[in-house]
Amino acid sequence: MRHLIDPSDLSVQEVDELLNLADRIAKDPKRYSEVCKGKKLATLFYEPSTRTRLSFEAAMLNLGGSVLGFASADSSSAAKGESVADTIRVISCYADICAMRHPKEGAPMVASRFSKIPVINAGDGGHQHPTQTLTDLMTIRSIKGRLGGLTIGLCGDLKFGRTVHSLIKSLSRYEGIRFVLISPGELRVPDYIVGEVLRAKGIPYEEVEDLETVIGKLDILYMTRVQRERFFNEEDYIRLKDSYILTAHKMQGAKPDMAVLHPLPRVNEIAVEVDDDPRAAYFTQAQNGVYVRMALIMKLLEVGEC
Amino acid sequence: MRHLIDPSDLSVQEVDELLNLADRIAKDPKRYSEVCKGKKLATLFYEPSTRTRLSFEAAMLNLGGSVLGFASADSSSAAKGESVADTIRVISCYADICAMRHPKEGAPMVASRFSKIPVINAGDGGHQHPTQTLTDLMTIRSIKGRLGGLTIGLCGDLKFGRTVHSLIKSLSRYEGIRFVLISPGELRVPDYIVGEVLRAKGIPYEEVEDLETVIGKLDILYMTRVQRERFFNEEDYIRLKDSYILTAHKMQGAKPDMAVLHPLPRVNEIAVEVDDDPRAAYFTQAQNGVYVRMALIMKLLEVGEC
Amino acid sequence: MRHLIDPSDLSVQEVDELLNLADRIAKDPKRYSEVCKGKKLATLFYEPSTRTRLSFEAAMLNLGGSVLGFASADSSSAAKGESVADTIRVISCYADICAMRHPKEGAPMVASRFSKIPVINAGDGGHQHPTQTLTDLMTIRSIKGRLGGLTIGLCGDLKFGRTVHSLIKSLSRYEGIRFVLISPGELRVPDYIVGEVLRAKGIPYEEVEDLETVIGKLDILYMTRVQRERFFNEEDYIRLKDSYILTAHKMQGAKPDMAVLHPLPRVNEIAVEVDDDPRAAYFTQAQNGVYVRMALIMKLLEVGEC
Repeated sequence: MRHLIDPSDLSVQEVDELLNLADRIAKDPKRYSEVCKGKKLATLFYEPSTRTRLSFEAAMLNLGGSVLGFASADSSSAAKGESVADTIRVISCYADICAMRHPKEGAPMVASRFSKIPVINAGDGGHQHPTQTLTDLMTIRSIKGRLGGLTIGLCGDLKFGRTVHSLIKSLSRYEGIRFVLISPGELRVPDYIVGEVLRAKGIPYEEVEDLETVIGKLDILYMTRVQRERFFNEEDYIRLKDSYILTAHKMQGAKPDMAVLHPLPRVNEIAVEVDDDPRAAYFTQAQNGVYVRMALIMKLLEVGEC
Repeated sequence: MRHLIDPSDLSVQEVDELLNLADRIAKDPKRYSEVCKGKKLATLFYEPSTRTRLSFEAAMLNLGGSVLGFASADSSSAAKGESVADTIRVISCYADICAMRHPKEGAPMVASRFSKIPVINAGDGGHQHPTQTLTDLMTIRSIKGRLGGLTIGLCGDLKFGRTVHSLIKSLSRYEGIRFVLISPGELRVPDYIVGEVLRAKGIPYEEVEDLETVIGKLDILYMTRVQRERFFNEEDYIRLKDSYILTAHKMQGAKPDMAVLHPLPRVNEIAVEVDDDPRAAYFTQAQNGVYVRMALIMKLLEVGEC
Repeated sequence: MRHLIDPSDLSVQEVDELLNLADRIAKDPKRYSEVCKGKKLATLFYEPSTRTRLSFEAAMLNLGGSVLGFASADSSSAAKGESVADTIRVISCYADICAMRHPKEGAPMVASRFSKIPVINAGDGGHQHPTQTLTDLMTIRSIKGRLGGLTIGLCGDLKFGRTVHSLIKSLSRYEGIRFVLISPGELRVPDYIVGEVLRAKGIPYEEVEDLETVIGKLDILYMTRVQRERFFNEEDYIRLKDSYILTAHKMQGAKPDMAVLHPLPRVNEIAVEVDDDPRAAYFTQAQNGVYVRMALIMKLLEVGEC
């Protein structure tokens, strides 16, 4: 039995196969509308996350399966002091597969060790969020036709953003990737990722503070939110905040085929005027999130296509 | 693509057609049990409302579709500062139609402008609640055989009750309607409705403080709750409160074929002894709420009857 | 129409038939996967209980039916002061059967009097929890092949544990049952149960304070949690707490075919090392909880087997 806890649980080849399946689903969703009939997905959200939860639920319903679960820890037995190990053993009696979001890093990993059903990590603290990474990869690949040979700009809070860390690690497995890391000094990619991933593998990267000066060389611009409270001092925040807001004006300096991604929800880091730009891919990304989760559920349940 | 934000979004003819469909569903629900197979309803309840939410969910399940969503804003991305416009664009990727309840007036209208799927207003602040109005109309029509030529009594809090305002506006579109508006002085129908709707259209109405003296001339009595905290002073409350409680005794003065409606939940404004009176129609109304929502979902999804 | 409010609502023969059906379901669940197609279960949880709620939902989904409801009172109309009688009359319009958990004892009983659909008590305060009792009976019977002629040890908090009280009453209806009641003095089985059930029916029982000295004679050991705050003084708690924790060491003194049950969630009253003992039956019990609820839903909806 397979689980998905860390994006690297899947080999490059397995990711390729999964994205191929997701592409086939996107082209003809009706064909898959009954493949999980009679199967149940448990959504165990110890921390609320409407978007991720609903994306999983939509995926399972699209496959003809059904859904049960909880949307926050208040209404769960965790409040009574039950361990994750016990919970998952009981949930294994209720469902065929589960997606777990947990504020504690490593909780889905622990669950997977005691589970009789496949466990999907739907985000554990600041740690991993592998289905977001798969969504990002699918979106890049479907727009660019490939995952290698691309210059990827990552912009905003690169220190605390787990989606950014997972994406760097995953893209590092492809040939010809270059990273442009755009963030204030306080919010740079942590050393252990720069050192263990980028330098260790000899992947070209540069770190800059300003989006506008580098936007012209990017194939992909991955935006994330910069929160005021992350800054060490107010002065820096005021000086830098506008550098990390993508506007129609800044888009003028970008390649005509650059794609803008964002894991959403977005607050103000992408001006709404950019939504109408054909290069804005973040709502397509949300749609891809459903397809890639459909593919993942099929893979982990070992459900055939026909 | 059509939405339902305000009761007047539907023409008189469209309301008729919708109620005809709802009647056909009520007579033979089994015939419609698969017409929405493979379709998904998102229930986006930024404000809890069990009754309305479950009524929508029952409607979609009765049509063979499925449901996803959230029951309160705590577990939604709204907490992270996302705009309604962004939320609906993402939800458009997850579902085929949505019902939105929001504490802020106008939120469903904004959503409908950015949505790729039909949006149903399931109540926005003190503003509109069009599916309640359709439920009321269906109930009146099914009991009386028509929507025109009726004397309609509205009793209780006529100032803040949005169901009352919507019902007045909707019934004003039919011939031969007369209103008897029964409320304490503090809780009378607002001037803009009396002026712009009733007087502008020359619709006969009277405003009274006492239910008992007028109950004998009513074809329909629509009860609503009078909350103590709405009164300006305790003295008025004590003096008037019993006037707005419907009892078996007061029912003796009513026509033998008058029907009592109430949007529910009821607290004490209808004595439980009235429940056994054949003229009590408020639980039938709850049942009609499911049928009318089934018809509405079918209409907005452009699903045929076969 | 039948409801299940109290375990004794079912005769011994009906329990037998229900457990027979549950056994058949356990052997061939696929055969029952569509028997409730088009039926809806409402889960009305005025008090959160993930395990019980999900068990009911899994049961209904396994039968091909669908589910709607609420997981806590916050998001229900109870907050607006609606009576249980009104709520159930409205829910009767939305669903075909309902499971109600309520903090107030007797609420499901009241609901059943006004309901047009079968009501299952899913736990009312400290009162009854009949589907847990059925789960316990199914587990004992499936392991031992019978419900009579057994020595049943009940260990832990026997004063406040409603599952224990219901189980004593239910097992008292079978021949040749003996009880060994293992608890601290403060947490003994209440007099009204010892007197009205055990002594009145002449059922052999003994009350002891120590698990280890009696474990050797038990066919079934039913563990429950002992909460520190239930003790009158700290001294007693420290002296006694280890007596009510089941360990691998204590299991060495038990019969080779004794079965350990626990209603779950477990905190620390069964050491995790016991989980690997083949006599540990508490996770099997969780699985049986789904089968027995499937059987119960079928029975109350009068759904045939084919």
